[in-house]
Amino acid sequence: MVRVGIIGASGYTGFELLRLAQGHPRMRVRYVTAEQYRGTRADQLYPSLTGVSELRYERFTAEKALALCDVLFVAVPHGKAMEMVPPLLAGGKKVIDLSGDFRLAGGEEYEEWYGIPHSAVELLGRAVYGLPELYAERIKGADLVSNPGCFPTAVLLATAPLLAEGLIEPSSLVVDALTGVSGAGRGLKLETHFCTVEGNLSSYKVGGTHQHIPEMERYLSDVAGQTVSVTFTPHLVPVSRGLLVTVCANMIRDAGGAGDAELAELFAEYYRGKRFIKVLTAGLPQTKSVTGSNYCHLAVRLDRRTGRVIAMSAIDNLVKGAAGQAIQNMNLMCGFLEDKGLTDVGLLP
Amino acid sequence: MVRVGIIGASGYTGFELLRLAQGHPRMRVRYVTAEQYRGTRADQLYPSLTGVSELRYERFTAEKALALCDVLFVAVPHGKAMEMVPPLLAGGKKVIDLSGDFRLAGGEEYEEWYGIPHSAVELLGRAVYGLPELYAERIKGADLVSNPGCFPTAVLLATAPLLAEGLIEPSSLVVDALTGVSGAGRGLKLETHFCTVEGNLSSYKVGGTHQHIPEMERYLSDVAGQTVSVTFTPHLVPVSRGLLVTVCANMIRDAGGAGDAELAELFAEYYRGKRFIKVLTAGLPQTKSVTGSNYCHLAVRLDRRTGRVIAMSAIDNLVKGAAGQAIQNMNLMCGFLEDKGLTDVGLLP
Amino acid sequence: MVRVGIIGASGYTGFELLRLAQGHPRMRVRYVTAEQYRGTRADQLYPSLTGVSELRYERFTAEKALALCDVLFVAVPHGKAMEMVPPLLAGGKKVIDLSGDFRLAGGEEYEEWYGIPHSAVELLGRAVYGLPELYAERIKGADLVSNPGCFPTAVLLATAPLLAEGLIEPSSLVVDALTGVSGAGRGLKLETHFCTVEGNLSSYKVGGTHQHIPEMERYLSDVAGQTVSVTFTPHLVPVSRGLLVTVCANMIRDAGGAGDAELAELFAEYYRGKRFIKVLTAGLPQTKSVTGSNYCHLAVRLDRRTGRVIAMSAIDNLVKGAAGQAIQNMNLMCGFLEDKGLTDVGLLP
Amino acid sequence: MVRVGIIGASGYTGFELLRLAQGHPRMRVRYVTAEQYRGTRADQLYPSLTGVSELRYERFTAEKALALCDVLFVAVPHGKAMEMVPPLLAGGKKVIDLSGDFRLAGGEEYEEWYGIPHSAVELLGRAVYGLPELYAERIKGADLVSNPGCFPTAVLLATAPLLAEGLIEPSSLVVDALTGVSGAGRGLKLETHFCTVEGNLSSYKVGGTHQHIPEMERYLSDVAGQTVSVTFTPHLVPVSRGLLVTVCANMIRDAGGAGDAELAELFAEYYRGKRFIKVLTAGLPQTKSVTGSNYCHLAVRLDRRTGRVIAMSAIDNLVKGAAGQAIQNMNLMCGFLEDKGLTDVGLLP
Repeated sequence: MVRVGIIGASGYTGFELLRLAQGHPRMRVRYVTAEQYRGTRADQLYPSLTGVSELRYERFTAEKALALCDVLFVAVPHGKAMEMVPPLLAGGKKVIDLSGDFRLAGGEEYEEWYGIPHSAVELLGRAVYGLPELYAERIKGADLVSNPGCFPTAVLLATAPLLAEGLIEPSSLVVDALTGVSGAGRGLKLETHFCTVEGNLSSYKVGGTHQHIPEMERYLSDVAGQTVSVTFTPHLVPVSRGLLVTVCANMIRDAGGAGDAELAELFAEYYRGKRFIKVLTAGLPQTKSVTGSNYCHLAVRLDRRTGRVIAMSAIDNLVKGAAGQAIQNMNLMCGFLEDKGLTDVGLLP
Repeated sequence: MVRVGIIGASGYTGFELLRLAQGHPRMRVRYVTAEQYRGTRADQLYPSLTGVSELRYERFTAEKALALCDVLFVAVPHGKAMEMVPPLLAGGKKVIDLSGDFRLAGGEEYEEWYGIPHSAVELLGRAVYGLPELYAERIKGADLVSNPGCFPTAVLLATAPLLAEGLIEPSSLVVDALTGVSGAGRGLKLETHFCTVEGNLSSYKVGGTHQHIPEMERYLSDVAGQTVSVTFTPHLVPVSRGLLVTVCANMIRDAGGAGDAELAELFAEYYRGKRFIKVLTAGLPQTKSVTGSNYCHLAVRLDRRTGRVIAMSAIDNLVKGAAGQAIQNMNLMCGFLEDKGLTDVGLLP
Repeated sequence: MVRVGIIGASGYTGFELLRLAQGHPRMRVRYVTAEQYRGTRADQLYPSLTGVSELRYERFTAEKALALCDVLFVAVPHGKAMEMVPPLLAGGKKVIDLSGDFRLAGGEEYEEWYGIPHSAVELLGRAVYGLPELYAERIKGADLVSNPGCFPTAVLLATAPLLAEGLIEPSSLVVDALTGVSGAGRGLKLETHFCTVEGNLSSYKVGGTHQHIPEMERYLSDVAGQTVSVTFTPHLVPVSRGLLVTVCANMIRDAGGAGDAELAELFAEYYRGKRFIKVLTAGLPQTKSVTGSNYCHLAVRLDRRTGRVIAMSAIDNLVKGAAGQAIQNMNLMCGFLEDKGLTDVGLLP
Repeated sequence: MVRVGIIGASGYTGFELLRLAQGHPRMRVRYVTAEQYRGTRADQLYPSLTGVSELRYERFTAEKALALCDVLFVAVPHGKAMEMVPPLLAGGKKVIDLSGDFRLAGGEEYEEWYGIPHSAVELLGRAVYGLPELYAERIKGADLVSNPGCFPTAVLLATAPLLAEGLIEPSSLVVDALTGVSGAGRGLKLETHFCTVEGNLSSYKVGGTHQHIPEMERYLSDVAGQTVSVTFTPHLVPVSRGLLVTVCANMIRDAGGAGDAELAELFAEYYRGKRFIKVLTAGLPQTKSVTGSNYCHLAVRLDRRTGRVIAMSAIDNLVKGAAGQAIQNMNLMCGFLEDKGLTDVGLLP
């Protein structure tokens, strides 16, 4: 039994960790923190826990985290995580950080995209990027895992096989993403008021300004072995959970022999043995198939008229896009089966 | 390991049984039937199963059901169930029927509310009503359990403590219910077209015509020890899952000493030890707290101005209102822990 | 052309007045106020106005309101309205107040339900209740109209014919209401976060605590000629607009000869000539039929088994439940056709 | 007063014509047809018309259409329209066809994309493409207007300024579109069942197979003066109305001096005097701003990192994407003001 702490457990991601931990046979949550709610029981914020958990939010102190926990999930906003993580690592703990603080390669790039200086640059090289389908071996030996953003997770999983096989031009990627509202967090903003979102379709951070872009490009480039760039447009749509990504890229000419079936086979081969990746051979990904689950559904299609390939992925932004993937990382770091506690299938209908 | 068959597994309830069975350590689904889809893989209808289950729909025959299964869940429309159940019972199997066919006391009443004659009247007395919070002992020894309707489940759980204690006038019950669209099934109707339901609030079967009324009244009367009648109005609202019931009744005068806290305590006492019933002491029930779970959340309030009590319940109509409760019944019938395979908490947010 | 001011034009109700005014041939909006947004263009908050209106929010001063406007719509929170209205009346203007400040009969009752003392008690007797289907003649001569709350509007319209004819017991009314989220306003609260409401059904202010109750009872009693009391339970459901009310009451025995058709006829007769009231003879009210429109759809059903009558009404809470009705009142006060600017039909689908 | 017929008035588009006609001072609907519903009153299908219109659906005959109407809107499925239109034109009537039957240049291309041979090829050259912002002059003199598809409308309006100015590479267009469910029609399909769509995000017709592609490319090429090709991916999202398009294209290098403000100014200039086009200078298009209205909101952004431009448009698929645009065309054909009957602003919230 691993003793677990969730730092920042009042937000949607933090609570999702708590929810999934309830069904994990090897996790025991010992410490949940939320500055704003200290003293409050978690079931008052998330009444699904009524009669199931009696945990109370506490104030975070590194001392208490070190005393009570073996593994720490850090689910606080970027900027705060980089202050909390160093003492936890120094105390010999395993840390999975769900913020953006340890996803980029250097402090300068971090400051450019996140708008603040990085206070723990020395850890950037130590952090392992927690996308298990690509980096499982490194994750197993890591003590600091940087859990991927929801968009990069979906984009990387949809695109990696194409780049690894050299089938697409690395400067031709155009990515559209549809995201549920929980990705914007539990904080109160007019943008997430029910009456703003219901019945509405909109875009945001258009024109290459989303902070997930350098993260995507870093690891897409890593897979490709050359620089990959992305034009990325996120859309906000009226669902609570779900993330659907469409990647469009120019096929490199001599790969032209392939058709949809061959591409699907190539994807299936690339992800052989990867428990949570399902390459659809009939139909296209839809987010509701993976709601509440850690699965990622993929499909790929060729547009012969224009010489482009379209790769699609669907995940639950809170599970495979955040808390589920974090637990998948913990499983690897702790030597558990990779899917321990993560076997629920999507909640249809 | 119990070998299970799901008769009628293409509908929402049938699929929900399949979904829940995936996470149940003692169930092994051996036989899924759907006349219309025989030969088709279940994951083609419900892509959440992709790569998880390879089951194919078959045609129902009693022979095959008897050969392959120990327990049969019958999730076909009313009228069909009463034809399928007798040979299964005759073959010594345990049967849980999720239709309305075995919920009423007599053939005449059945014909009045369901519009067709009953062809297996002799089994009506043998069927045990599968509401475990009230009838667990009888369920344990039953071979035919009639799984309650979604509305009666929520109404009975909200009202039983009040009736059992003699606190309300049995002829004064006014019940309003809000239901998600999955309760209307997967069949194609204009009433369940997305554009009909989205952004819309409506009522249906107003004026005492819903077939769940005699079922409610039968078991409410059983709890009260006297005849109870109900004015029942169901409303259709734009959610897929969820059922919220509001019961309003006149307090019997000499119970007037009680306040909200005392009533909550009375409810908690009545349901002490009942694993899936949570009486809220702060806040009111909301369906999303129980989405995907087998829990029922309850609360009760007194309106001193008008001398009425208002009791509320929230369930997931497909889980506690159908498939989850059916598995809860199976657990009791098979001697398993009552909550085996049913420990997921509600999917928030 | 009437010169109009909207005091509190940044909220949903205030904006709805602005939206409807765009299509009203006799209204000219001269003054829109919103303390928080002064200097901001209205189309920045409500981009539907882009290129259509160049109005900017200003700070409210009675002087400016008096100088620029003939009619003032006051759409500020209760408590503030009673401070703004007196100087406007003193200046000889027509005022339509959409808050709760002038809906009750006395200062004591106001303080009991709204929690603050009333600072303009002397105007309570002067305010005319702006439900035109009941009080058109008085409204025509009024200079202060108190625009009804959304729930009282729907409840009164559904119930008045039954009470006026003496068909129901005045102490037996049980009312359930379903409301869209815009009724809770544009302010930021966790209760109206998209992820709280989407996929969720809940109740609030259960047990006789909603401030619309004394308002309903006051005018229901006025119609009945005797004291009427109501047990009222509001539910929040995932739509932006729409209000569906179900009134259940005991039939007085000797009215028993009537059936559904006779009751519908009685309703139609009661509302003969009332432009916005539609009594359905087939089907039941649904809110989407009146979305964006000033119509109210009604239906009535008898439950012979229990001796109760069920009356239902559907309105758009922002139109007939607020801004549309306010303009209907203005039309009457200014001698225009009652439906001027209000002829749009519901936005289906 | 123009006498109007709506051929195919039971579907969403046909009804939307009827709804908009209610508010048009110069239209008088004399004839509504729907084979399946003949004899039925329109308000039974669309209860928003209750007490407002007493029109009944009739069977279509060219004789009756010719006898009763001056202008015919044809809102039947493709394949049927090309059979109905010829006799109407022969009878000297003005026809606005909302199907895809007269949008392509030749019979062969039609058969390739629509799967059936064209039976009125001789009219293809006579039909004028009814996008008034591009072809107003030709529309004024036309007797057969082919009303654009919803996707082509949004894509053309977002892209035309860029192509007309030669700012983008004509083979580099990648288009993602989000559409509401009403675009799929009122027919019953599992794909439009509420429980399929609610909480779900999906794609369809991926890989260059949507029949709107040749239509887009035809008129994009017309604007550009050279061949334009498009990779087009439509997504289905849980709203009833609304269409949001994102066009991504490579900037031609020497246009690089422009920034977001210059591009917005270029768009504004291109559409100067176009009543329904609003180029946003702050914020991005969202569909709810145009719900129920004939407006199209546009914005454009430069992604300097990747050298691409992103143009976005938002329309209501049933109004500017179908019925509203058809009436806009009628206004031009009949010499009315272009915006007659079309001045409603979007229904926010």
